Amino acid sequence: MEPDLIRKLIKPADTRVILLVIDGLGGLPMEEGGLTELEAAKTPNLDDLATRSICGLHQPLGPGITPGSGPAHQALFGYDPIKFHIGRGVLAAVGIGFDLNHGDVVARGNFCSVDEEGRITDRRAGRISSEKNGELCKLLSEIELPGVEVFVKTVKGYRFLLALRGEGLSSDITDTDSQVAGDRPLQPQPLSQKAEKTVRLVRQFLDQAGRILANHYPANMILLRGFATGPSWPQINDLYGLKAIAIADYPMYRGVAGLIGMDTVDPGNTTDRKIDILRERWHDYNFFFVHIKQPDIAGEDGDFYSKVAGIEHVDAKIAEFMIMKPDVMIVTGDHSTPSLLLEHSWHPVPVLLWSKYCRPDGVDRFGERACINGGLGPRFPTTDLMPIALAHAMRLKKFGA
Amino acid sequence: MEPDLIRKLIKPADTRVILLVIDGLGGLPMEEGGLTELEAAKTPNLDDLATRSICGLHQPLGPGITPGSGPAHQALFGYDPIKFHIGRGVLAAVGIGFDLNHGDVVARGNFCSVDEEGRITDRRAGRISSEKNGELCKLLSEIELPGVEVFVKTVKGYRFLLALRGEGLSSDITDTDSQVAGDRPLQPQPLSQKAEKTVRLVRQFLDQAGRILANHYPANMILLRGFATGPSWPQINDLYGLKAIAIADYPMYRGVAGLIGMDTVDPGNTTDRKIDILRERWHDYNFFFVHIKQPDIAGEDGDFYSKVAGIEHVDAKIAEFMIMKPDVMIVTGDHSTPSLLLEHSWHPVPVLLWSKYCRPDGVDRFGERACINGGLGPRFPTTDLMPIALAHAMRLKKFGA
Repeated sequence: MEPDLIRKLIKPADTRVILLVIDGLGGLPMEEGGLTELEAAKTPNLDDLATRSICGLHQPLGPGITPGSGPAHQALFGYDPIKFHIGRGVLAAVGIGFDLNHGDVVARGNFCSVDEEGRITDRRAGRISSEKNGELCKLLSEIELPGVEVFVKTVKGYRFLLALRGEGLSSDITDTDSQVAGDRPLQPQPLSQKAEKTVRLVRQFLDQAGRILANHYPANMILLRGFATGPSWPQINDLYGLKAIAIADYPMYRGVAGLIGMDTVDPGNTTDRKIDILRERWHDYNFFFVHIKQPDIAGEDGDFYSKVAGIEHVDAKIAEFMIMKPDVMIVTGDHSTPSLLLEHSWHPVPVLLWSKYCRPDGVDRFGERACINGGLGPRFPTTDLMPIALAHAMRLKKFGA
Repeated sequence: MEPDLIRKLIKPADTRVILLVIDGLGGLPMEEGGLTELEAAKTPNLDDLATRSICGLHQPLGPGITPGSGPAHQALFGYDPIKFHIGRGVLAAVGIGFDLNHGDVVARGNFCSVDEEGRITDRRAGRISSEKNGELCKLLSEIELPGVEVFVKTVKGYRFLLALRGEGLSSDITDTDSQVAGDRPLQPQPLSQKAEKTVRLVRQFLDQAGRILANHYPANMILLRGFATGPSWPQINDLYGLKAIAIADYPMYRGVAGLIGMDTVDPGNTTDRKIDILRERWHDYNFFFVHIKQPDIAGEDGDFYSKVAGIEHVDAKIAEFMIMKPDVMIVTGDHSTPSLLLEHSWHPVPVLLWSKYCRPDGVDRFGERACINGGLGPRFPTTDLMPIALAHAMRLKKFGA
């Protein structure tokens, strides 16, 4: 997909698109000859919709690549995750709902344990609790650096976010985390001249953090990595002519949606409440990204039946989406999370796209095997999905005469 | 497809390729659960050929993009329409069969209506007839400009073509059509220094046109846009080692074929006459592009059954193509024109490629659904078709040792 080409072809239309993302949807059988979670789930409503849809399986990042949640969602929104790079620090920031300003420099932090000689004995500080993390972040937030604001925010367990806000900052800085226990934390180094000032500030921060944490063993030091600044990407309104809203209870997904200019709302974690908001905002927007987290969590827990149940739960709600009469309804995942693997995987992700103008492809149920024979193809780039959705929403002009 | 790679691999062979293009071939069901035009058509000959062919569906311009006829044919000929841009003026020229010379500058013209102050009151001059257009073009053709030949040719209704032929002309010129009624026509401006001379000539032309048309309300002024020169693309003989002929009754398709160096012939609109010419020229050429327009027209009219009949008409002629013993026979469309939509669409286009050396793929009928499972894939780039055809015609060498 060429964003510049799509931008030139956009035409206005009074049409609405729903993108329903079932996180970690794709799966695997637990044993040879078995069914995947989606295949095992009883999904009469999704099967009916698939029969009237065009189906397929998409690959967020290319063959064999297992995507993180951030890049996977970028791809769903049509933003090539390789081209539009998102730093780990930025992902951490959007993941906790930190309100990233233009020019902020952020980094992911770990609390860690060091011995008397300053050598790392535990990169995760004995996996301290989020509560303890909160107390320590409060202490570190009191560090003052000349000319910049300092934010230190709890992420989870031993992980936190450091953000610096001020003029002339740069994220061209090396990690302090060598990722090897037994080493001393590294000194951060500038990767370009413009980062020298920021490096000085980060070193001051590290010195003071070391002093403040000295008596807080096992969390008596910190490691920083993935320095990044908030990206300035094309915004969804400008690129696609869409007024878009993200309805997602996890901050990370609202965060990625926010980076491309979607409005965001936290509906809490019930699907009913998400559908309520969809209904309430139906006339305010023309693109609705609705995110369901449960199947991914079940997959990461290795809980096949919980994931099946999560998918069946969504299936039971499909009619409530369709009753809104969207012009295009997409049901898919951001990536696969097979219960067998207990983590994200590279396997292509099933998708169905329903519209009055889709060309049916003979697929009559929603499952990984069935979707292989779908008209969208068995392994297409996830970034194809957005222009295909725009076409079915009659929002793209003809190219050439 | 990389033209430079293909060019390096070309080897001579005494083989012949027929590319039979059924314009607007791809379609949609008129109602949920129905068949497309091609699926509804009785096509025993195409079905038999499909059984012995490799099949698939191609996308002329990428996911979701609806192609115009010009770019769609470029893609069929293996010329990426994004990379090999074709200006509107050039398309208009080839569309009316104007014999574009290298270096000619062309533009699309509208007759329009202006009030006493020169403000545009109707950008389309009350949609004058093509006949009236012809009279006015004759008057404008008498305008003389120093050092260049002037051609003014009727396109249709209020539209005409302006062409300037001479030394040192440039098409780096802004439109005079602001596309806003109520404004005065814009003065053309040079976009680069080399266009200054051409701009002076165009301004002289506009002055004289204004005087000549003054008493011809509603067509009392003209607007010009899309200044362009004929492209200098790689020629099909040089690129593919093919001696090619376009057998097409619509000038537009002969025009695009001409731009890449095909010989062209206007056979009139009967398929029998096209086949006669194929037979007559069989030993003079090794690539035959045969164009059938009717199904596209039926699709744009929303006439499902007429499109079905048009496809069945082609099916009945398949044996007459095959009796020539082509080495490669391709049957496809340039784009989809579903009767449901009454216009071109983004939906992938069915294709079959028969050769003694194609690997059959289990597809046993020629239709959109059936082709999804074909060996060429459900959504492959149209520009792949030409190298695949050359390979099956034994015209490509091995790459590397």
